[in-house]
Amino acid sequence: MDLREKSLQVHGELKGKIEIKSKREVNTKEELSLYYSPGVAEPCKEIANDELLVSNYTMRQNTVAIVSDGTAVLGLGNIGPKAALPVMEGKSMLFSEFADIYAYPLVVDANNSDEIIRFCQMLAPSVGGILLEDIKAPECVYIESILKDTLEIPVFHDDQHGTAIVTSAALINLERYTKKKLADLTLVLSGTGAAGSSIARMAKNLGITIIANNIDGVVTREKYEKYDDVVKALIDDEILSVDNMENLEFADLFKNADIFVGVSAPNIVTADMIKTMNKDPWIFAMANPVPEIDPQIALEAGAFFMGTGRSDYPNQVNNVLAFPGMFKGVLETGLKIDEKMKITVAKALASYITDEDLDQDYILPNTLDKGVAPHIAKTIIGMNYEEN
Amino acid sequence: MDLREKSLQVHGELKGKIEIKSKREVNTKEELSLYYSPGVAEPCKEIANDELLVSNYTMRQNTVAIVSDGTAVLGLGNIGPKAALPVMEGKSMLFSEFADIYAYPLVVDANNSDEIIRFCQMLAPSVGGILLEDIKAPECVYIESILKDTLEIPVFHDDQHGTAIVTSAALINLERYTKKKLADLTLVLSGTGAAGSSIARMAKNLGITIIANNIDGVVTREKYEKYDDVVKALIDDEILSVDNMENLEFADLFKNADIFVGVSAPNIVTADMIKTMNKDPWIFAMANPVPEIDPQIALEAGAFFMGTGRSDYPNQVNNVLAFPGMFKGVLETGLKIDEKMKITVAKALASYITDEDLDQDYILPNTLDKGVAPHIAKTIIGMNYEEN
Repeated sequence: MDLREKSLQVHGELKGKIEIKSKREVNTKEELSLYYSPGVAEPCKEIANDELLVSNYTMRQNTVAIVSDGTAVLGLGNIGPKAALPVMEGKSMLFSEFADIYAYPLVVDANNSDEIIRFCQMLAPSVGGILLEDIKAPECVYIESILKDTLEIPVFHDDQHGTAIVTSAALINLERYTKKKLADLTLVLSGTGAAGSSIARMAKNLGITIIANNIDGVVTREKYEKYDDVVKALIDDEILSVDNMENLEFADLFKNADIFVGVSAPNIVTADMIKTMNKDPWIFAMANPVPEIDPQIALEAGAFFMGTGRSDYPNQVNNVLAFPGMFKGVLETGLKIDEKMKITVAKALASYITDEDLDQDYILPNTLDKGVAPHIAKTIIGMNYEEN
Repeated sequence: MDLREKSLQVHGELKGKIEIKSKREVNTKEELSLYYSPGVAEPCKEIANDELLVSNYTMRQNTVAIVSDGTAVLGLGNIGPKAALPVMEGKSMLFSEFADIYAYPLVVDANNSDEIIRFCQMLAPSVGGILLEDIKAPECVYIESILKDTLEIPVFHDDQHGTAIVTSAALINLERYTKKKLADLTLVLSGTGAAGSSIARMAKNLGITIIANNIDGVVTREKYEKYDDVVKALIDDEILSVDNMENLEFADLFKNADIFVGVSAPNIVTADMIKTMNKDPWIFAMANPVPEIDPQIALEAGAFFMGTGRSDYPNQVNNVLAFPGMFKGVLETGLKIDEKMKITVAKALASYITDEDLDQDYILPNTLDKGVAPHIAKTIIGMNYEEN
């Protein structure tokens, strides 16, 4: 049986990959009056007097909502909310398996970005955090930014920042392992959408110089008016180096660069491009399911490090390394997710691998290692103690 | 330790009365690729092609949302969404315990009725049904009615119809047990809000004549312009008998009446009023926590049947007898919840007690009897087969 048949069979058998259960049996009048009416009025009254007590008496502080409108699901595009539900259930499953977090898989039928925003704002009293998922760009950037500004709870769009955090962890560990200094390095970014722009901001934060290419070719100051708000902001905030580049082609960017990060399209990078880079370049080819360059070809062309989204190669760049532990940490501390938190999570993820274990093929932890999420959560909790 | 201390302790220990768990462990790359990317794309594609398949490949058809804005919680009034969360978790617990249904306890921060409506409409792709809870009247009636008209899934406001269904089941069994004919009987209704209006409609459907009293005194045609839309509709639809009553007081309604149903205020009914009723009257005194008349006083004044919301008396009129089994049935059949469905559920609930077991003190099943919900679900499923 191939993966397709197997997946349809198992999804059909399970009819839902998660389940919601009462923690206690309700068999006696005493139990009914304790968990439900009239006893339940007591925690209600306490919370009505002091809203913060909602964390003490309910599941809220261990619960997140996974919210999607189904407009950019995996590589499938805009398939709508109902068809997106299996993905959100899968994410809820990962929250449960890796961090014991309760996650509601919610797919919403919204007419526009403002409706998704309003949905999340109305939902906020029910949950300790919101994970946005599979919402198309550039809307996702606007939605996340308004929600971060208006809600007291952490909000995180995984498609933007998940890959960025894991990529940054790899960059941090590559500096540790190779003794190259990130501040001396130049990174060629292919793709400046949701994921690309977040990667650019985090890499810049780590001191790296970034030059970029997108659907309009090499990103230059001259083309400024052509760009959407996301790319304009990358230029305005001096995240990308865009001066004196008007005569360059994509292939030219590789000359004397040290790092390539692709979140773009299959097979757009050649062995020749890799060969023009500085010695022992680091290659992240993360287009899914077919990467920007075949990993084998890149390694033969001289790549020192090869990261992909694929599970059949070492150093898999997978969001599951970041979001479960990060949410565990922010739910426990009440901290929000800002640029500093993302760097903290990247460093925590990187530090999970000891100096002795660090290796070319073990720059990133294994995606299935269940020690990673508790390690990240512990780091965030420790940071919170230090600051208070 | 009293109930208050015990409730705070247990709510504090549990930090959430329900939990969300993955149904399967995720330990291998194969499992990750089956439940999540890339395997999860297969059910997504199937549902994108045929929306109805969402029931085959996800948890949706066994899942409901419990939605409240916290404006009318228990007897506590408008305590807001966060303070309402313990009640919604309790309800989710009952869904799990009595019907193995997954229920999201969602408390929403909405500015008005239209926002709650829009929230539920956006949420609809995620769930097989919506239970509205603890939303103040008359808004709750408007919200439910718009959602019933605009959504394909069953919508049910428990505060309106839960008590009405269980009261109707008791009326059906009292007819069986006493051989009085419902069509010959007159019912005095005290309270014409959310619950009262639904009771009136169901009792009328059973053939009973209904006269009513509310905050403006005896309900008469002459006061029509005074009433809110809910009461006006009860008059327009000829649910209440309102003619030739302008000179009557509340106490006068009891003369020659057969049934009293109170969903109003404590201690407003006296033994003398009961004594003016026809022989062996049926008394439902359901104000919480203090009923319209003390059950002992009513029984001594001649009440044949005594129903209350209290667990320390037989014949407890409690919503938990209705909603778990009803939702199990409508989720499995895809039927909506209309007047006919509510009568079906009332009849199913009544028929759970056999002729041999039926007794003055066993007119309604025990609220903790876990055979009730499956019995109601089976009845709905059977009805669906008959009709198709």
